[in-house]
Parts: sequence; structure tokens; C-alpha cells
Amino acid sequence: MKKIISVFLIFCFSSTLFISNAQENGMRNEDAWMIRKIFDKSLTEGQCYPWLHFLTKKIGNRISGSPQSYAAIEFSRQMMDTLGLDSVWLMPCIVPHWSRGNKSIAKIIDSRIGDIEMKCLALGGSVATPDEGILANVVEVKSLDEVEKLGKTNINGKIVFFNRPMDPTKINTFAAYGGAVDQRGSGASVAAKYGAVAVLVRSMTTRLDDIPHSGGVNYNDEAPKIAAIAISTNDAERLSALLKTEPTKVYVKTDCKWLKEKNSFNVIGEIKGKEFPNEVIVVGGHLDSWDVGEGAHDDGAGCMQSIDVLNIIKKLGYQPKRTIRCVLFMNEENGLRGGKAYGEYVKNGKEKHLAAIESDAGGFTPNGFECESISESFNQQLKQMQEWLPLLEPYGLSIKRGGSGADISPMRPSKVLLIGLRPDSQRYFDLHHTEIDTFEMVNKRELELGTASMTSLIYLLDKYGLK
Amino acid sequence: MKKIISVFLIFCFSSTLFISNAQENGMRNEDAWMIRKIFDKSLTEGQCYPWLHFLTKKIGNRISGSPQSYAAIEFSRQMMDTLGLDSVWLMPCIVPHWSRGNKSIAKIIDSRIGDIEMKCLALGGSVATPDEGILANVVEVKSLDEVEKLGKTNINGKIVFFNRPMDPTKINTFAAYGGAVDQRGSGASVAAKYGAVAVLVRSMTTRLDDIPHSGGVNYNDEAPKIAAIAISTNDAERLSALLKTEPTKVYVKTDCKWLKEKNSFNVIGEIKGKEFPNEVIVVGGHLDSWDVGEGAHDDGAGCMQSIDVLNIIKKLGYQPKRTIRCVLFMNEENGLRGGKAYGEYVKNGKEKHLAAIESDAGGFTPNGFECESISESFNQQLKQMQEWLPLLEPYGLSIKRGGSGADISPMRPSKVLLIGLRPDSQRYFDLHHTEIDTFEMVNKRELELGTASMTSLIYLLDKYGLK
Repeated sequence: MKKIISVFLIFCFSSTLFISNAQENGMRNEDAWMIRKIFDKSLTEGQCYPWLHFLTKKIGNRISGSPQSYAAIEFSRQMMDTLGLDSVWLMPCIVPHWSRGNKSIAKIIDSRIGDIEMKCLALGGSVATPDEGILANVVEVKSLDEVEKLGKTNINGKIVFFNRPMDPTKINTFAAYGGAVDQRGSGASVAAKYGAVAVLVRSMTTRLDDIPHSGGVNYNDEAPKIAAIAISTNDAERLSALLKTEPTKVYVKTDCKWLKEKNSFNVIGEIKGKEFPNEVIVVGGHLDSWDVGEGAHDDGAGCMQSIDVLNIIKKLGYQPKRTIRCVLFMNEENGLRGGKAYGEYVKNGKEKHLAAIESDAGGFTPNGFECESISESFNQQLKQMQEWLPLLEPYGLSIKRGGSGADISPMRPSKVLLIGLRPDSQRYFDLHHTEIDTFEMVNKRELELGTASMTSLIYLLDKYGLK
Repeated sequence: MKKIISVFLIFCFSSTLFISNAQENGMRNEDAWMIRKIFDKSLTEGQCYPWLHFLTKKIGNRISGSPQSYAAIEFSRQMMDTLGLDSVWLMPCIVPHWSRGNKSIAKIIDSRIGDIEMKCLALGGSVATPDEGILANVVEVKSLDEVEKLGKTNINGKIVFFNRPMDPTKINTFAAYGGAVDQRGSGASVAAKYGAVAVLVRSMTTRLDDIPHSGGVNYNDEAPKIAAIAISTNDAERLSALLKTEPTKVYVKTDCKWLKEKNSFNVIGEIKGKEFPNEVIVVGGHLDSWDVGEGAHDDGAGCMQSIDVLNIIKKLGYQPKRTIRCVLFMNEENGLRGGKAYGEYVKNGKEKHLAAIESDAGGFTPNGFECESISESFNQQLKQMQEWLPLLEPYGLSIKRGGSGADISPMRPSKVLLIGLRPDSQRYFDLHHTEIDTFEMVNKRELELGTASMTSLIYLLDKYGLK
């Protein structure tokens, strides 16, 4: 009898196992088929590339508060309106409005070799110098710590020149950027504390070239605000070489100003979920850019990919269970006001936000996703997503623990799963925040693969939900 | 007693295991450290980028037999001579010498809209048309099969226009190329068999643009040789649209000729192995290019990376056990004579060739390696290499079964392990065999990462040998 029961139990167990495996294989086949369709559609009927052409060539760069930023809002809304979404709307946010004014000047004043005009850009948010500019001796440092060590005696009345390069041996260039960008962000206030009159910052790139890189400076309240200017890496090398031989003076002039804050908007469009309309998956990028170049990779690419995700879902006639929402955030570059407004909305709203994906690392060949969350379930969620890897690896995609994106970070306290698209990073800092971040630097297929990668992950998140 | 023996055996077994694990971990740490050094050195002191600048800008494109091909041989030899290698020499091979002569013409003759000059390039190896050119009606086909089906009735006296696009949905663009390139390689002979007077071939790219792509046509002996011309994809689309409305005539003229064969060379340099000097690991690319653009990605990149592998090994002061040999092959594009000469050398020589790595898929971010061999031990060898993956994955590198490279393929019969470097493929066919395959299209870091990837794999192959 015991034996019979055992055999029976074994039979039950193995047949359940069999059914469950078969079901799972069936689901997997269906998923593989769907993801193949998503890639096919994105690579043949994706719209991100022509949309990006309009955004970059007809509108151009679009710092928060600028007329072009409103053109970008209206353009994105109109594009979403063509897709037959369930709703498209604007979410208000108040943004700062900074203007660099006339071209900044940074000039080496040297009686031996004559004056040398350096290729420069005021850092975003920099204050103006007095009208007559500033002429002062330069002191070169490699770190914020070095300023602290040099102290008032060596810093007072000087222009501090931050010249620690991005580490070229980091394989991921974002790590190299992270290791150098404190000079740009905090250098001015640290130097001003000891009486510096302005700062020059080596551009954030591993290249040696003549292209200055802008990007934000963050003043704190403990020190006077002094002008902050990025110089090209070639000029940084030259200035450093001169300083090795004898004291060198530099003349700087910036004309920047803060204008009145402006009413601006995040642009939002969505496909309503059929089963769980109140559960939301967000995909987005930021619509503003710095005021140089065309903001093509940063972050026109991510925005146009995000609208294209909805486009591809509609084109495939796929009806999601959950609400898929594209959010184009305003003001990532100098305030994060759009991201914060959306974060508040998530915190106060009655919807459940499952996950948010941001594409803000350039429109290059995607290598996968990084995820983060403060939810207790995060480890489980990550494990669940990594079980999808056999479906994503044929497209070169991985899923790892890591960072996500600035605009979606204000959703962190609401325990939303935050995901960053991770493209190949080698070329990003050649053009980040420069005149050459233009449409021509974006490859159509690489851009479209980003759309397809995000759409695929959203398909899986939508279908299976999160543990 | 039995129990004591058991305990003793367990002890022996586990302590051996322990020692072996510890040894293995030690080795792994040493390897990880070495590979880190290789990447650091390549990204800070690699020379492939400035060398490529010279090759592309001072020498330019370099079809076999051309004066520039001899400049490239001499330049590479001189660069190798600066590295303190154990020997540098030239291996003779006789190469064909084809010249396109005057610019080819492909013009739509249309009384409705006026004549339209198409952007075109004679295919490499094409014969000339008669001096007065050829004017004929065009018949569009999508495949070689379609020509066979249309037969003499529909083909005779016509210009056959091969217009099957590369499939944009293939994630790996080399697969898309492989799926379309039969039209370029075999189209002329298949069409001529049925009386075609010339062929037009849609350029091998997924892009829609005005840039024609050259590449080789292979005539067989069963049909007359007729002129073969690539037209840009935009022109292919336009011609196809015209053909849909009414019969269309095209005028073509080519001025190509085959010159006398020339004595040429593979350029070879090596670091002699200390323990097994008679065991050789080859790394290489091909020094010739088509006669348009600068042959930067195809394959200046692979050649300069291959010399740089020896440079990095020397700079690290690493003494290999086995001989590491850089071979820059001549005549990959239209004859493979250099590869065949080296293949003969391997077959007849007294050295044992362990493995050969080729970089001929562009100087883009490397994703890993593909391997092949007809050796009985290949499965074991692949398994052995895949055990090294934990050392390579931090650099984004995989090791898979697959293809390798054209130049090293003549070593296949000698059972050499053949390995191809596999970079990201998205941009390669934007520029392959065109005027825009120039230095500017190569990113310094991406190129250097290729050097580092190959050096790392060679380090492991050298240290551990192959099963």
C-alpha cells in the first residue's frame, strides 16, 4: 500500500512538474517570439531617428526656460498625439532659467609667448565675472583636498585650475566621469572658501582635443560664488606645462546670468493597462539639454526612444495589462525640477508605480540594464528579472544591480524599481555637454536597438508584474 | 581499520582539493592582475591610434599592388622595428593588381524626368565596358534564383539590377551582410549566363544614403565577364520606384583593368617564446584595402592593433613562453594571396601553430571572440578557453563558437585554433568599402580596447597552452 501511494505521489509530482515545465516553455516561446517582433518592428518602423532629427535640427539645444525648450515640449506632445495613445498631457513644474550671455573668455596672458585664447565654456550655473573680467595668477590642483591643504595663503586672490583628468583605464567611462566630476561640481565653492577669485576646470573627457565640455557647477552657501569655466583638455595640458616653468596669469570673463524662473512641463503620454490600469510602468529621458550643441545623445536620444517605445507597442497591437507611461522630464541638467515634480506625484498619487526605466546614457548600442530600489523585495525582483536573461541575452542585454537615472531617482523613496538603460559608454564623453553632441553623432541602428531593448523589458515587466 | 583508511583518504582528497583550489585562486589572481595591467597599458600607452593616423592620412587606401600598399608594408615594418622585437621580416607573395581607372558611370536615361546620374562604384575586379559604354533596359531582381527563373527570354540583352536589401532586423550586421552579399559576389556571372550585358548591385548596407559600397565580384568561367557596378541605396530605391511605373534604361561605363601581377609581402614581427619557441600564436589583420576611402576600419584598425599587441607585451616586460607573432596579411580584399602564402608556410613549416587571432571586423568596442577549428580537440579547447571567462567578462568579452577571419582561414587544414575578434557590429556596414571608411570614424578608446582584448587572450593562451 505504502508502495502504491509512493508511486502515485511520484506520478502526481512528476506530471505536475511536466505540465509546469511545458507551460513555462510555452510562455518562454511566446515571449521569445514577442521580443523578436519588438526588435523587428523597432529596426524597420521605429520613429526615434527621424524624430531626433527634428528635435536636434529644427529645434536644437534647449536649456530649461529657453524658447527651444517650449518648442521641444510642443513637438513631443504633437508626436505623442499622432500615436493614438489613451492620454497625452503636460505636468507643470517651475524651472530655473540660466543664460550664459556673451561668449566666455579664458586667456593665458604671457609676455614670453603672447596671449593664448583658450577654448572654454562657462560651466552651467556659473555667475558672471565683473564687467572688466578678472586677471590673476593661476594655481593648479588635482583635487578638492589639495585646495584644502594649500589653504588661504596659497589660494587667496588666485584662479584655481582643477586639472585631474578622467581616468582612461576605467572600462566604463561613467566610472571615470564619476571619479573626476567633483572638481566641476564642487571646485568653485571649495576654492572660494579660501579666497579664490575664479576657477578653471579641465573638461570632463578622456580625449585630448580642443572641445570644451560644459556641465553644472553647484555652489554652496558657505563661500562667495565665483565664476567657473571649463577649458579644453589640450588647453589644460598647455596651461599645466606653462605653470611648470613659471607663474602664469590668466584673464577670465563670463557674462552669465540667472533669469526669472519659468513655468515649464514634463510631457507625458500613456497606454492604459487593461487589467491593472492603476499599475504604472514609466519609461523616459530628459527633454532639456545644455545650451551648446544639439543635445542629441544627452538626452534627445533617450526621449525619442521613450516615445518610440509607445509607438512600437501600438504598432504591434499589443494591449498591455498595466499602464505604460512615457515621461519626458524637464530640467535634468540644472535643477531636476521635472523629476522632482513627478516624484511628488508618485508619492501623493493613488497609482502604484511598479518600475521606471530611464535612457540617459546616450543613444549607443545597448548592453543591458542596471537596477536599484529601496524596496524590501528588491533582491527577489532582481532575481526574477535575471530569470528573463535567456530571452534578452540574444540581443546582447544583461541585467545587473547598479544605478538608474537622475530623473527617476525622486521615485526612490516610493520604493519604485528604478532601471537605467546601459549602452556602450566608450564614445559618450567625447561629446557630452559640447558643441559636437549633434544628430550626426547618433547611429540609427544603435538608437533603435535602445528602443527595442526598453520595449522588451517593459513587455516582460508588464506581463509578469513584479514579486 | 576501514574507517581509518576512509578518514585518511578523505583527508588526502580534501587537502589536495584545498591546495589545488588555493593554487588555482592564486593563478587566477595573478591572471586578473596581468589582464588589468594589459588594459591599463593599452588605454594609456597604446600606439595603435597614432599609427592608424599615419597609415590612413599619410598613406591612405592601399589596394594590392598599388604604390600605397608598398608604403604600408614599409611603414608597418618600420613601426615593428621600433619595438625591439626578436625578428621582423617580409614574407613574399604574388598579388593581383586591379585598377578601377576613370570614375565609373551609371546613369538613368529617362525622357520624362531627365537623366539621373547615380552614385556608383565599379565592384572590385569588374571588367571594363566597351569604350562607348552600355545602354540597356533594366530588369530588377531580388535574388540569384530569380535570375534563373526569369531565364534568357527576360534577361538577354538587359542590365540586371540586384536589389535585395541587407536584412535590418539581424542584430549582428555581419549576418545581414552574409544574407545579401551573394548578389555582389555571384550576381554578374549568374546574370551573364542568361545574356545580361551588365549588373547593378544595391550597396551592401542597411542605411539609406548616397554612398556606394565597393567590394569584390567573383566571375566564374561558365559565363562571359560583364561589368558589375554598385549603386547607393538611395539610388537603388529610386531606380526600383521608376521600374515600377515603366521600362527604364540605364547607361553604364566602367574603365577597370587588370594590371600585371606584382611581388608583394606579408609583414611579420615576433617575440620569441622562452620555453617553447617553436610553438607560435599569431595575431593579425590585413594590410591591403579597397581603393576608396582610407581603409581605416577595414582593416587598418586590425593591423595597427596587432602590432600594438606586441608593443604592449614588450612595454609590460612580459616574456612569453611561446612565440607571439604579428602577421599583417597582404591581399585579403581580392585574392587572399598573403593568407594563402602564410597557410602554406604553416603547412610545410617545422613550427607548431597553436592559435591565430584575426581582427578584421572594425575597430569598434570589442564584445569578445569567436573560435573555430577542425582539430579533434576543438571542443576541449573551447571549454578550456571558456573557463577563462571570469577573467574576461569584466571587460565585456565573451568566447563563442563561430567564424574567425579570412586571412587566417588557410591555416584551417593545419588544425590551428582560429579566433576572430568580435567588435560591436552596428556601424561597420555604414562605411565598409566606401569613401567614408576614414580615420575620423575610428574611436581611440574602442580601438585600444581591441588591442587589450587580443593581448589578454594571447597572454592566457601563451601561459596555459591548449589541451
